[in-house]
Amino acid sequence: MGAQSVYREQDDDAHRALASYWVEALNQLEGEEQIQGFLEAAEQLEGSELGLLLETLPVGERRALWPHVPEEDRVDALVAMRVEARGTLLSALEPEQMDQLLGDLDAESLIELTDNFSDEMVDRALARMDSQQRTWYRESQEYDEEQIGRYVDHDVVVLPPNARVAAALRMLRRYQLAFTDRAYVVNRKGILQGEVTLFALLQADPDTPVRHCLDEDITPIPADTPVLEAADRMEHADLPMLPVTDEGGRLLGRMTVRLGMEIVREHYEGQLMASAGLDEEADLFLPVWRSAKRRALWLGINLLTALLAAWTIGLFEGTLSQVVALAVLMPIVASMGGIAGSQTLTLIIRGLALGQVTPGNALALCQKEIGVAVLNGIVWAAVIGAVTVAWFGSIPLGGVIAAAIVVNILVAALSGVAIPMILDKLEIDPALSGSVILTTVTDVVGFFTFLGLGTLFLLG
Amino acid sequence: MGAQSVYREQDDDAHRALASYWVEALNQLEGEEQIQGFLEAAEQLEGSELGLLLETLPVGERRALWPHVPEEDRVDALVAMRVEARGTLLSALEPEQMDQLLGDLDAESLIELTDNFSDEMVDRALARMDSQQRTWYRESQEYDEEQIGRYVDHDVVVLPPNARVAAALRMLRRYQLAFTDRAYVVNRKGILQGEVTLFALLQADPDTPVRHCLDEDITPIPADTPVLEAADRMEHADLPMLPVTDEGGRLLGRMTVRLGMEIVREHYEGQLMASAGLDEEADLFLPVWRSAKRRALWLGINLLTALLAAWTIGLFEGTLSQVVALAVLMPIVASMGGIAGSQTLTLIIRGLALGQVTPGNALALCQKEIGVAVLNGIVWAAVIGAVTVAWFGSIPLGGVIAAAIVVNILVAALSGVAIPMILDKLEIDPALSGSVILTTVTDVVGFFTFLGLGTLFLLG
Repeated sequence: MGAQSVYREQDDDAHRALASYWVEALNQLEGEEQIQGFLEAAEQLEGSELGLLLETLPVGERRALWPHVPEEDRVDALVAMRVEARGTLLSALEPEQMDQLLGDLDAESLIELTDNFSDEMVDRALARMDSQQRTWYRESQEYDEEQIGRYVDHDVVVLPPNARVAAALRMLRRYQLAFTDRAYVVNRKGILQGEVTLFALLQADPDTPVRHCLDEDITPIPADTPVLEAADRMEHADLPMLPVTDEGGRLLGRMTVRLGMEIVREHYEGQLMASAGLDEEADLFLPVWRSAKRRALWLGINLLTALLAAWTIGLFEGTLSQVVALAVLMPIVASMGGIAGSQTLTLIIRGLALGQVTPGNALALCQKEIGVAVLNGIVWAAVIGAVTVAWFGSIPLGGVIAAAIVVNILVAALSGVAIPMILDKLEIDPALSGSVILTTVTDVVGFFTFLGLGTLFLLG
Repeated sequence: MGAQSVYREQDDDAHRALASYWVEALNQLEGEEQIQGFLEAAEQLEGSELGLLLETLPVGERRALWPHVPEEDRVDALVAMRVEARGTLLSALEPEQMDQLLGDLDAESLIELTDNFSDEMVDRALARMDSQQRTWYRESQEYDEEQIGRYVDHDVVVLPPNARVAAALRMLRRYQLAFTDRAYVVNRKGILQGEVTLFALLQADPDTPVRHCLDEDITPIPADTPVLEAADRMEHADLPMLPVTDEGGRLLGRMTVRLGMEIVREHYEGQLMASAGLDEEADLFLPVWRSAKRRALWLGINLLTALLAAWTIGLFEGTLSQVVALAVLMPIVASMGGIAGSQTLTLIIRGLALGQVTPGNALALCQKEIGVAVLNGIVWAAVIGAVTVAWFGSIPLGGVIAAAIVVNILVAALSGVAIPMILDKLEIDPALSGSVILTTVTDVVGFFTFLGLGTLFLLG
């Protein structure tokens, strides 16, 4: 909460967010001045904000500033950073610094940092935790990265059914956990029985057992629920927290609405990055060499699809040498198909993510998208045909390109529905590979149709 | 909360989300059976979930089911739907149905539905509200769609500084508002003085005035804060609610963490849709004709850029007629540039959205991206050069394409940094137009370099 007084001072200053003020400021300073600036920022920002601030600086500067992060903020700063950015700091730690860090971790921060650690380092961290934390860590590892069980929050007040109302109120008051307006009641085996809200406790006689004001009609989130589905339930539940249980009904912890917000943000960020073949954990300032290596794969995949397109064109070398206008115009056919297809694709990908597109309505969607494609295909075919006739003075050439445009936009619409649905069925993220596959289809079909029709009708 | 018992029943059934169960089911039914299914769904789902369910059905079926939405759920259902989908229902309402709907609206639902209503309809709805609701609506209209003031939630408990602790507790208990673990204290002019938390009230003597347990060190969100920035503050605040005030410090209402979650989801959904020239409010089943009209603009813009690329190629008709291999290979040059550029572009767009990219670190980012481009440019130029030599048996052709690839990937990296930063400066959303502009640059530069070098070195 250290940031509050400063936000207030800066409210005058056109409500500029505090953290982005420091991003700008620190990026303009160097050396000793930058360190002074950072120390000032560290007084005003939370640990997590310091982590995000460090991400905006080149690797050398990050490393130079790291020793000036207040010790109590270091774990929070690392947790807030993306895997790659965090790695640039961790790899520069001295053995004794790393040792200290490993000793400072609790179960939740170790879960967040696991990707950066070797098994041996995880074991060292576990050895330094108390047994409760160790159990929590082990429980979380029962679930994979896409399941909510892995991210369960243990800041819950848990009561036996016979606890008195007065004792329950005392515990809630003592801990004052964020987003906590209720306590969970579990039996001796740890099975969730229900919840008691703070309001219900306030209205009850202090001496009665909490089971008398128990709400049993609650629906826990099963720990193997996909994170995005859990976030969705959170958004509709209108509650600050929901309990998370294992298959046996045992209470593992809770999910908060704040975690839901984080999941949603990370999911969409991931989709955005995936659409360019990037990793959500990508670091703005990952060293050039490693950045290049990461991105090379995507370029390589694209090269294969481009070679396929080139090979298609190559089938018509004879035609092209006679009618050069085909070479001039062919990118238009491919590109109109690509754009039309990506519109359909994007609509379907969003629908799949929201659970609004299913095999049940796929056929109706296809019909509608084909309708749109026919209309737009005809309109733009006419426009492009007319432009072509005006440019090259050839009516047959105008007819050939118009026909190719109609065909390609139709194929694009069909592919835009079919590709993401098939990928989804195969459990491949359509946001990652959907658009590469679609573009390959529209390129190959576009070139083949245009040059094929050109061969049939224009050679003479 | 009607959904809870059913979630529990279905937990056995592999935790399938209730709503997506009904999406699948209703899409497979027709006519009378579909109505029966929908009535069953209506018993189990909340109003907002029914709205999302209706969105998954073609327009005709939506309209047929609408009369079966329970009256008390209708406003919630409409609010949850996207503007376009909602419009397909509203436009089919009889005048008396519309009249009833307008009478059922409060300030918050009217704000959500405003986009679908004419001014005259808004006035009719306002005339039917009580004056408190009318004031809230008018206050919200002082702020635009991108400012948090427009979406302020009025479910707050507001106290004068002299209210007794006992009275404060009574009020909090009576309303039991979601996400409400604190009340706001305002003076006679409505200026926010601070907050009292439920926990502080519980610890205080019931007879003291609340000002004795007041926390004055809180930082309200100014009402003209951009929504995304407000959501960001919410994510870092670790509080279920924050007060929203106008420039004078007057309390307008609150923002909840749930609203933050909704804002984040809608923002990213909007970005995803914008990248294909679509509107976030786009309806899966908007009638074909209107869908086609919406998308035509984007296709038209794309056609202009494709014509520019074609014109560039046209400059080299003479070269192409002599060296057909250039026509075969030219899409490879353009496409490698496009992919490399879109990777940089996406990284920068994300950085801008998070406030992590600023003019302060633009130069350092440029240097790094150029480094990546040089490395990947050289590697892939070598690969493609070798493939070309093997395919066409011409070393000069291999050299020409390799040089063009290096140039285009370099230009792509520079454009990938510069274009979004310039658009951001001009307050144009880079997610919307960034990739069209980038592709135009990489197409034109790619074709020009490749065919230009070909003209210089291959003719003769």
